[in-house]
Amino acid sequence: MANDQPLTKEAILEAAEQVLRRYGPEKTSVVDVAKALQVSHGTLYRHFPSKVALREAVTERWLLRIAKPLEELASQPGGSAGDRLRTWLQALIQSKRKHVIEEPEMFGMYSAVTLEAVDMITEHVQHLITQMTGIIEDGVNSKEFRSDGEPEAMARAIFFATTRFHHPAHAYEWSSSTIEQEFELVWELILSGICK
Amino acid sequence: MANDQPLTKEAILEAAEQVLRRYGPEKTSVVDVAKALQVSHGTLYRHFPSKVALREAVTERWLLRIAKPLEELASQPGGSAGDRLRTWLQALIQSKRKHVIEEPEMFGMYSAVTLEAVDMITEHVQHLITQMTGIIEDGVNSKEFRSDGEPEAMARAIFFATTRFHHPAHAYEWSSSTIEQEFELVWELILSGICK
Repeated sequence: MANDQPLTKEAILEAAEQVLRRYGPEKTSVVDVAKALQVSHGTLYRHFPSKVALREAVTERWLLRIAKPLEELASQPGGSAGDRLRTWLQALIQSKRKHVIEEPEMFGMYSAVTLEAVDMITEHVQHLITQMTGIIEDGVNSKEFRSDGEPEAMARAIFFATTRFHHPAHAYEWSSSTIEQEFELVWELILSGICK
Repeated sequence: MANDQPLTKEAILEAAEQVLRRYGPEKTSVVDVAKALQVSHGTLYRHFPSKVALREAVTERWLLRIAKPLEELASQPGGSAGDRLRTWLQALIQSKRKHVIEEPEMFGMYSAVTLEAVDMITEHVQHLITQMTGIIEDGVNSKEFRSDGEPEAMARAIFFATTRFHHPAHAYEWSSSTIEQEFELVWELILSGICK
C-alpha cells in the first residue's frame, strides 16, 4: 500500500494477518507490519500500541470470520429445528477443524490469544449462543422442542456440552478416528436426554 | 529410606511425588529422587529410565487416586440413579478442582503428561466410563432412564458432554463465578434433552 492511501483498520489487519502467516506469530513485530504497509512504525503504533494489541485485533477478526457464515445459517428459516441446530453445530465444528488443519500456526496464535483476551471470547461465545437461541425458539414455537426451558439457557447448555468438539484446547483430539462417532453420541444425548 | 530396605515401585513413586512437589516439575531430575531415597541413580534408572518415565508413573498414580474414591461412590447401590450420577459427576469435578487449587504446579505437570501419554489417559477415561455405565444400567433397570440406548454409549456421551467441567484444559475457567450455574444447565440438558 502506498503512503498516500488512507490507512484503514481493515487494511492494517489484512496486512498484519498476511505478515503473521508468512513469518509466524513468534517472529512478527509491529515494525514488520509497518514495512509491509509502507508506513512508518510510528503511524502503525498509533493504531496498535503493541504486538499484543495487533494479535488481539487479528484474532477478533478471525472470530468474526467464524461467526458470520454461521449467522447466515442460523437465520435461514424452515425445516426441522433439530436438523438446523445440528447443521449449525457441525458448521461451527468444521470451521474450527478447517483452521487447525490448514493453518496450525495461526490457529495456535488465535487459541493463545483467546485464553488471555477474556472479554473478546465472552463476546464471541455470546454471539454464537444468540444464534443458537434463535433456532431453539423456532423449535419451541413449532413444538418440536420442549417449552419448559428458557431457549437461551438451552443454547448455552448445548454450547458447553459440545465444548470438546469446538474449543481450541481440544484440537489435538479432532484427528481421532472416533471423534465423529463421539459427536453423534453427544448429539443424541442433547436431543433426547437420559430420562424416560 | 535406607539402602538396605526393599525399593518398591510405590516407595519410589511416593518419593518422586514429594521431590516434584518440593522442587517443581521443571527442576526435578531422576538423580534428585535417587538422593531422596538414598539409593544410587543407577538403581533408580533401572526402574525409571528417564525423567519422562518418572513423570508418567507419578501421573498414572494421580489418575488412580482420582478414580478410586469415585469407584466406591459408583458401586454404592440404592436411591435414584439420576442423583447418583449427578453426585458421581460432581465428585469427579470437585476432585479435579481441588487439585488445581491446592497444587497448581503439580496439576500443570499432570495435565502436560496426560496430553502426551495417550494410552494412559484412554485407560483412565475408560475406567471412569465403566463406573458411570454401572450407574446408568441401574437406572435403566429401575426404568428411571431410557432403555433404548446402550448404557456404555450413554456414559461416554455424558463424559464428553461434561468435558468443560473436568478436563484439565479448562481449569482456567473453573474459577469463573458462573461455572456452577453452567454445570447445572448442562446437567438439566443431559437429564431431559431438548426434544418433547
